[in-house]
Amino acid sequence: MRKSIATVSVSGTLPEKLEAIAAAGFDGVEIFENDLLACPLSPEEIRARAADLGLGIDLYQPFRDFEAVPAELLARNLRRAERKFQVMERLGADLLLVCSNVSPAAIGDDELAAEQLGLLAERAAEHGVRVAYEALAWGRHVNEYLHAWRVVRMAGHANLGTCLDSFHILSRGSDPIGIEAVPGEKIFFLQLADAPLLAMDVLQWSRHYRCFPGQGNFDLAGLTASVLRTGYAGPLSLEVFNDVFRQASAERTALDGMRSLIALEQRLGSAARPAVSAGPGAPPAPAAPAAPPAPTGFAFVELADGGELGEVLSVLGFARAGTHPTKPVELWAQGGARLLLNATGTEPALIAIGLDGPDPAGAARHAESLLAPVLPRERAPEEVKLEAVAAPDGTEIFFCDDAWLADFAPAEPVPDPESVPEPVPRPVPRLVTGVDHVALAQPWHYFDEAALFYRSVLGLRPQESLELPDPYGLLRSRAMSNDDGSVRMVLNLAQVGSAGIAWQHVALACADVVAAARRLRSEHPRLLLPIPDNYYDDLEARHEVDPELRRLGVLYDRDEHGEFLHCYTVTVGRVFFELVQRVGGYQGYGAGNAPIRLAVQHAEGHRTSG
Amino acid sequence: MRKSIATVSVSGTLPEKLEAIAAAGFDGVEIFENDLLACPLSPEEIRARAADLGLGIDLYQPFRDFEAVPAELLARNLRRAERKFQVMERLGADLLLVCSNVSPAAIGDDELAAEQLGLLAERAAEHGVRVAYEALAWGRHVNEYLHAWRVVRMAGHANLGTCLDSFHILSRGSDPIGIEAVPGEKIFFLQLADAPLLAMDVLQWSRHYRCFPGQGNFDLAGLTASVLRTGYAGPLSLEVFNDVFRQASAERTALDGMRSLIALEQRLGSAARPAVSAGPGAPPAPAAPAAPPAPTGFAFVELADGGELGEVLSVLGFARAGTHPTKPVELWAQGGARLLLNATGTEPALIAIGLDGPDPAGAARHAESLLAPVLPRERAPEEVKLEAVAAPDGTEIFFCDDAWLADFAPAEPVPDPESVPEPVPRPVPRLVTGVDHVALAQPWHYFDEAALFYRSVLGLRPQESLELPDPYGLLRSRAMSNDDGSVRMVLNLAQVGSAGIAWQHVALACADVVAAARRLRSEHPRLLLPIPDNYYDDLEARHEVDPELRRLGVLYDRDEHGEFLHCYTVTVGRVFFELVQRVGGYQGYGAGNAPIRLAVQHAEGHRTSG
Repeated sequence: MRKSIATVSVSGTLPEKLEAIAAAGFDGVEIFENDLLACPLSPEEIRARAADLGLGIDLYQPFRDFEAVPAELLARNLRRAERKFQVMERLGADLLLVCSNVSPAAIGDDELAAEQLGLLAERAAEHGVRVAYEALAWGRHVNEYLHAWRVVRMAGHANLGTCLDSFHILSRGSDPIGIEAVPGEKIFFLQLADAPLLAMDVLQWSRHYRCFPGQGNFDLAGLTASVLRTGYAGPLSLEVFNDVFRQASAERTALDGMRSLIALEQRLGSAARPAVSAGPGAPPAPAAPAAPPAPTGFAFVELADGGELGEVLSVLGFARAGTHPTKPVELWAQGGARLLLNATGTEPALIAIGLDGPDPAGAARHAESLLAPVLPRERAPEEVKLEAVAAPDGTEIFFCDDAWLADFAPAEPVPDPESVPEPVPRPVPRLVTGVDHVALAQPWHYFDEAALFYRSVLGLRPQESLELPDPYGLLRSRAMSNDDGSVRMVLNLAQVGSAGIAWQHVALACADVVAAARRLRSEHPRLLLPIPDNYYDDLEARHEVDPELRRLGVLYDRDEHGEFLHCYTVTVGRVFFELVQRVGGYQGYGAGNAPIRLAVQHAEGHRTSG
Repeated sequence: MRKSIATVSVSGTLPEKLEAIAAAGFDGVEIFENDLLACPLSPEEIRARAADLGLGIDLYQPFRDFEAVPAELLARNLRRAERKFQVMERLGADLLLVCSNVSPAAIGDDELAAEQLGLLAERAAEHGVRVAYEALAWGRHVNEYLHAWRVVRMAGHANLGTCLDSFHILSRGSDPIGIEAVPGEKIFFLQLADAPLLAMDVLQWSRHYRCFPGQGNFDLAGLTASVLRTGYAGPLSLEVFNDVFRQASAERTALDGMRSLIALEQRLGSAARPAVSAGPGAPPAPAAPAAPPAPTGFAFVELADGGELGEVLSVLGFARAGTHPTKPVELWAQGGARLLLNATGTEPALIAIGLDGPDPAGAARHAESLLAPVLPRERAPEEVKLEAVAAPDGTEIFFCDDAWLADFAPAEPVPDPESVPEPVPRPVPRLVTGVDHVALAQPWHYFDEAALFYRSVLGLRPQESLELPDPYGLLRSRAMSNDDGSVRMVLNLAQVGSAGIAWQHVALACADVVAAARRLRSEHPRLLLPIPDNYYDDLEARHEVDPELRRLGVLYDRDEHGEFLHCYTVTVGRVFFELVQRVGGYQGYGAGNAPIRLAVQHAEGHRTSG
């Protein structure tokens, strides 16, 4: 389907916006009037610029406070419209968005509204322009999409149709299935925006917190399917007002928007084909590749290493299980957990995630269809091919089956005396059974983009965003997982002073965290993060818990499904480890304990393990 | 009165918070439980730390979801309370805040609530603790302060009183005058927070947007006056949850909070003394210095100058009217506008504002009483003493009468050939009549602090905050003025990518902006900012305006009182000038045109004048 985006959705001057939008592969744009007004280029020059970039001007918007007004005001409004038609002719735009009137001067009279909109459509026709009338969620009298359609039908003018905007429909809780009552040829335009569910004034919600389809909580696929069932053949167009997008790179935002439309199309292709023919005007449903199954587990987690991590992994019970034949990468394993240490010499950081799945090549093609940058792999001829893409924050995502393990030769029995200055500590057997989750720190303007990436590319299901207090700010945190919980990720965004924090961590699943902590506390007393006694005074006031938790510094949480026991190592570089034990069907991540952990981490600074 | 603040109101670890709070001069603190839980110090150590700093622990908070529950849950809640009483004994805190129950387990039965709170108070008494019961605005059954008082009275226990929180009262629109129905000795605590008027869920509003008294829209003085009329003798305590304060410097936030309480006390001292004696327990109303009258006009605006500004001022019709005998400062004057150019050699920037007023010394003492940093003035013996303080962003504020002008000797007739490479352009007479307003760019975490500073120190009245779109973000803007509009200031906060913008400007009042622009456009075509034709296409569609505005690049706005004509110079360093003409009683600042100006400024970059 044709894909458009409103210029207000991305940052920059109008020419900058157009370039970013074209580069992301859009077919057309909605010109947001304020972007035009502030632009030194004439409408003719903008038209030429867009044409050079291969962009159609699909809509000019918005025209406000027109209909259902007293006669004297109508005359002024028609004069105002006449000027806009002239601008549109110069721009080469033939569709004008008219928002339902919000002014106190508007009269609650549908017949009057229809009559005046008909008059406007008649004038528009003289300029070759059509008018799309849209119900704003906060319109004074017309604020429901079916009401706008009723007025349009009453007017009965060929040049008057309706514009549907998913935000205005879904933010009011209206059921989009009623869209199927509108003939497709009378839906002149479809604007798509998602949004997180927020309990706030709908105008503020709309103006600051819209996001791309798949980033929020609305069912955009359901709504769009209803629109397509009518035979609607116009563009899918993004119209997003978002405070973060306003400040972020236009190129990046435009690409993110394109990804959201491709993902939407893919969902529609597999789930929302019209059950019956939608009539002679209906286009065929788009053919979209079926998404491969979600990943089935963590194949590995790769950490950059400056030489400090091997000892920590040894202490945690990992053993060196192999080395890469051509790269400075070691495989460390324990239970089902496999960690790769990449001797980059830099500060420890989480740099890559390997995901198991039945069809790695299919998963990579799917990622590529969603505009994920495919990473080149320089490899020796004998090495296994690994497909990888870059996540928004630069983390490399590998799609694996078991073949990759063959790359790793068994570990050399003699440790390198340079990298391990002391004898390797006695391994602690069977502490860890696998990787429970990884937590990634996101740059502030990638948070929604990352959620959409992991949702669309990996098929993970995002949970609600949480806000967790940190001593120096707030941490936004959003967990995502596949259906059986075998792949869990947590995206963190620190709004913490100007410094920010960029800690990442690997949470390792344990069968018995208390036993693990007992051993680690006694043998390596400085490895685990100390937890304040005051935390346990409160914990014991709320729950009956094993008094040993206090002695060991093991934290505790519970939900309606079960219990969660966990403890943390100190931070090494940007990385720390968590040991976690899920009892029963506990689904969370101990978010209530995160503020305690953050405060201790700040207090400890970047103390390395001992 | 005793002044307290909740530890949640400032950033940092608990010891850092206590230090900042003590440094700002508070008498006591409310210990917010989460701050304690995350702290490695024992309650005894925290008690000692606070005592060393001269801080009392006035309240321990919050204890949640206690009252009006089934018997089995009551037993668990009492056990939980018992643990908290033990912590409080160790802390040396004798007052516990209990918030009204928000849990679905709570029963809507006041008698049950009263009975169980009585039981809690009885247990508390055994530990020397008193209980202050507060209605949360989102409490399940009890969410009005008078309802909480009804329950407290019903319980009839000496150790049970009520806690009043201005946010919970005013956010619901409850009338605070009902407070006077509560005996002062049953008001155990008073928490103060202001907030901007926001149409959002009250819980989110409370948790993210509270601010200090005087920074928002609530009538804190009226509420506090009602509380004092009851004979309440406890502390005024700030409890503010604010996303910006969480990230800002604790020292700075604490000082800002203290300023807000001093300003509140000053308002109460002059306006809210009890009309009748409030009873034997009532303390005398606080003696506070009466605020001097607000400033009556701009004495001068001082600009740092690297040598570029003199020519711009000449072109704008200013003449050099004097030089300072000992400092590299020139006085430039035109009509009632006086600008000082301070040859610092740095990039042009607005560095100081002089304000006229009948009592400069009194104004300075008033500013000092509000913790404004007094600036040292090194001066020669013959120079006039000028009182000055620093505003939050570092701008120097001088309190003046006309004596300062005597410092400036008449200008030398011969211009310095070094600083003025070309002949000084022929002055354009009588363009400017005075200074209309100055606009200052604020660092992001000083915005509310600056509003309180100018409101309390200068007596300016803030208007609503506006959000204006910039091509690369949003600009928050808040205007403030004295009653007759002779002193107007605009505070701008740019949330614009990571770069930020820090443009400041001086708006000069003109009798005829069109005539001024006509002359400037013809004689100095590159001085005034070009305004896009597209702007005028829209302007002329909306209003009947002089077609010459388009040719001259003069912008236009109107409100219900009158009209506004204005144009801008290009930016020189961090500074530009605006020429403004108010027709009729226009009260605004042309905010609707600011996005146009910002877009052009970004496009022009930092082009210097020609």
